[in-house]
Amino acid sequence: MEDLILHEDRRSGNCYKIRLTAALLGLPLERKAYDILAGETRTPEFLANVNSNGRIPVLQVGNRFLPESNAACFYLGEGTELVPTDRFARADMLRWMFFEQYNHEPNIATLRFWLAYLGKADLTEQQRAQIPAKRIAGEDALALMDRHLSGRAWFVGNACTLADISLYAYTHVAEAGGFRLRDRANVCKWLERVAGLPGYEPME
Amino acid sequence: MEDLILHEDRRSGNCYKIRLTAALLGLPLERKAYDILAGETRTPEFLANVNSNGRIPVLQVGNRFLPESNAACFYLGEGTELVPTDRFARADMLRWMFFEQYNHEPNIATLRFWLAYLGKADLTEQQRAQIPAKRIAGEDALALMDRHLSGRAWFVGNACTLADISLYAYTHVAEAGGFRLRDRANVCKWLERVAGLPGYEPME
Repeated sequence: MEDLILHEDRRSGNCYKIRLTAALLGLPLERKAYDILAGETRTPEFLANVNSNGRIPVLQVGNRFLPESNAACFYLGEGTELVPTDRFARADMLRWMFFEQYNHEPNIATLRFWLAYLGKADLTEQQRAQIPAKRIAGEDALALMDRHLSGRAWFVGNACTLADISLYAYTHVAEAGGFRLRDRANVCKWLERVAGLPGYEPME
Repeated sequence: MEDLILHEDRRSGNCYKIRLTAALLGLPLERKAYDILAGETRTPEFLANVNSNGRIPVLQVGNRFLPESNAACFYLGEGTELVPTDRFARADMLRWMFFEQYNHEPNIATLRFWLAYLGKADLTEQQRAQIPAKRIAGEDALALMDRHLSGRAWFVGNACTLADISLYAYTHVAEAGGFRLRDRANVCKWLERVAGLPGYEPME
């Protein structure tokens, strides 16, 4: 595989997904740090050379750039034990990764970012008005995960896949956004299962 | 391939993506209609048997159920000409599909749903307050697409992939949500290119 460089902010769960995937697979990953809060991913140079969408993570593969955390995980994981060999199961893994970006991240990650990094006092009125809806939608996502994990060890099939890594990233730090995890027994057991995987590395 | 049944609401662009993928590939698809506005995807029966997330589309494959439009397209498209054979290009295709669900759909599709189906007068105060931010984010997504398509015929490589189908679904009806497409010349030419594909079927 060509040289891999992760353009990241270490506080971002989306960046951590890629780092965890690489760690579980034993892939070497160079890291280049940006400070989102200081606008370092919105500079003309970043927009021109790394990601026109002004976001991290971006996985650099040789001289090519791949934005979107779950796409980067897929690039690293394809053909390994983290991606099912069965066609339906592979699509079902992607199903949970799309769920993560649509139903989970915009609520659970955003509330963590707003409350733990920006700070409630510094939110705009419009952001503050969205907190109750994001709280409900985030709780719904956690409840759905907890029900799905009833009697199951992993999201898809009988082993850890990229679906688990993707959902783990922001779930295990959800309390920083004001979500209570201890009421979700199946989720808590699954979090421990992920943290016990050989090669696991914690978020910094 | 096992029998395919699409659980859908025909007004939904997310459902149309799957229908268009199947049409381009010549795959027969049975269709089962639900009325989102009448709550038909939130019944106890639907939640228990089709999708615990209460959403359509769901692609039924034999007796298994696959939610999330882009995951369903991936299931149908894998191994066909709609998915690149190169590993990086395949991940880059997914990159645009994640972009679609994160940056495009929640703005462009949501404004279409709110303005063309629910009607501005019937929106909650909170929905109304979100219109300006969704307008800006939707325009940003269209501008990014237009820049990417400058000098390119398709989103990834030199042929139509699932990335194009995914982005086409809500882009080609974006004006129903109040977006102006005619200022985006590259997007307009690309929309025509998709509509000219052999096997193309229009949204109903």
